[in-house]
Amino acid sequence: MDTRPIGVFDSGIGGVTVLKEIRKLLPKENIVYYADTARVPYGPRPASEIQEFSLDAVNFLMKKDIKLLVIACNTVTAVAFDYIVRNVDIPVIGVIEPGIRAVRNTKDIKRLGLIATKATVDSNAYQNRLKSQNNDLIINAKACPMLVSIVEEGWADTEISKLIVERYLENMKKDNIDALILACTHFPVLRNQIEEYVEDVRIIDPAEETALELEKVLKAYNILNESEADGEVEFYVSDSAEKFKSIAKNLVEIDRVDEVEIGY
Amino acid sequence: MDTRPIGVFDSGIGGVTVLKEIRKLLPKENIVYYADTARVPYGPRPASEIQEFSLDAVNFLMKKDIKLLVIACNTVTAVAFDYIVRNVDIPVIGVIEPGIRAVRNTKDIKRLGLIATKATVDSNAYQNRLKSQNNDLIINAKACPMLVSIVEEGWADTEISKLIVERYLENMKKDNIDALILACTHFPVLRNQIEEYVEDVRIIDPAEETALELEKVLKAYNILNESEADGEVEFYVSDSAEKFKSIAKNLVEIDRVDEVEIGY
Repeated sequence: MDTRPIGVFDSGIGGVTVLKEIRKLLPKENIVYYADTARVPYGPRPASEIQEFSLDAVNFLMKKDIKLLVIACNTVTAVAFDYIVRNVDIPVIGVIEPGIRAVRNTKDIKRLGLIATKATVDSNAYQNRLKSQNNDLIINAKACPMLVSIVEEGWADTEISKLIVERYLENMKKDNIDALILACTHFPVLRNQIEEYVEDVRIIDPAEETALELEKVLKAYNILNESEADGEVEFYVSDSAEKFKSIAKNLVEIDRVDEVEIGY
Repeated sequence: MDTRPIGVFDSGIGGVTVLKEIRKLLPKENIVYYADTARVPYGPRPASEIQEFSLDAVNFLMKKDIKLLVIACNTVTAVAFDYIVRNVDIPVIGVIEPGIRAVRNTKDIKRLGLIATKATVDSNAYQNRLKSQNNDLIINAKACPMLVSIVEEGWADTEISKLIVERYLENMKKDNIDALILACTHFPVLRNQIEEYVEDVRIIDPAEETALELEKVLKAYNILNESEADGEVEFYVSDSAEKFKSIAKNLVEIDRVDEVEIGY
C-alpha cells in the first residue's frame, strides 16, 4: 500500500479526460495534475523543446513525491516518452501503448480510423506500432485540429461541433472503418457526437485504456492506495488558473487550481 | 525609383491577406514573402522567443536585399515591432498602426468591435492605442481562435464557418457596434460571412490599411518601383511548401514556394 500521489502531466486541458477515467476506476488514489498551459500547444514545437518542457514538468511533479507518472498527452508520449523514462526512477505510463493494446485485443478490426492532432498523425507513432503488430491493418488517419479548438472553446455540445465531426469523419464512414481510435486526449469530450455519427463503429478511447493500464501497473508494483477514504486531486497550471478551471469543471470535479511558474 | 523587393513576414499563412492587398495596390513591386510555418503559431510563445524568431526571419529577408519590411502579423507587431525596428536600418511597417489610423479617420465610431487571436486581445496592443487617442471609445474585444483554424483548414466557405462567425459575433451585434476591426490577418478571408452577419457595421481591415500605408511610405522615401512590368513574388517557408501552397493558392497567385531552414 502506497498513499503517495500519482503525477499526471499534459500540456493543456486534454489530459483531464485521462484523469476522469483514473478517478472513475481508482477513486482512492491521490493525484497531482500539472498542465503547462502557458506553453500549450506543444504540437507545433520541435522535439527537443517538447523534451525540455516535459522534463520541467516532471521535475516539478517529482518534488510532489509522486509514485508513478502518467503522461496524459499524445504529443508528449509520441515525442518524449523514452526521454522521460531515462530521466526518472519511477514507473511511467503514456497514452499510446494502452490504445495500441486495445486495438490488438479487439477482434475483427480490419479497417481502423485514427483521429488526432496534426503532430500526432505526422509523428506516425500510432501507425508504426499498429503496423508492426498487424501489417494487414488498413489505417485511415486524419488530423482534426478543429476538434481540439472546439473543446478548448467549450462548444462541445453545439450544432457546430456536430457539423465539424461529420465533416472530418465523412470519408472514414464511407471507407467502412470497423473501429475508430480517439488518439487525442481532447476527443473523448466529443464521444457522443462521434458515436452518433459513425453509428456501430467501435470506439477505442486511450483515456479508458490508460486507466486500466495504470491499475495493472499499480498492482504489479504493489503500490495501490488502499485507504478507506477517497483520494484528492491537486491541480497546477503554468498560466491562468481561472481559464483552466472554467473548461475543466465540465469534465471533472475541481475546486482549486494553483498557478506555478516552472521552467522559465 | 527602387526595384529592390519589399520583405513581407508572417509566422504563417495569414500574412497572405496583406500580401494580396499590396499586390492589388502596388502591382509593380517585387516581394519576398517569408512564413515561419515550422514554428507557427507564435501566439502562445513568450515575447522573448517571438522576438528571437522574428529576428531570424528579418535577417533572412535582409539577405534578399529588401528595401522595406512589412510585418504582416498582429502577434509579431504587438510583441516585437520595436525590437525589430532597433535591429534593421530600413523602414518597417506593422499591421497595427494602419488599423488604428483607419479607426481614427472613420467618423462616428462610438462602439468598436475587435476580433483577434487570444494573444493579440490579451496583449492590449489595439485597446491601449485606441483608448489613448479616444478615451470615450467603447471597445468590445473578443478572441476568436476558431476563425483562425477554419481558415487554416480551408473551410472558409462552409456552413460551419457561417455558424462559428455568428456565434462569436452574436454579442457584438446585440451590443450595436458601429465598426468591427479584423485584428487578425486570417480574418479577411472570412470577410463575406462576417459582413453578411453584422450587416451595416463598417468593417476595418488592417490588411487594406497596411497596403495604403506602404504606398505612402514608399513615396515618402522615394523608393517606389516604377518599372513597366509587374513585380514578382518569391515565397519561402520553414516547413512544408506543399501545405502552404495548398492554402495560399486560394488567396493569391502562387507558382512556387521554397523551403528554407533558418534559425535552428
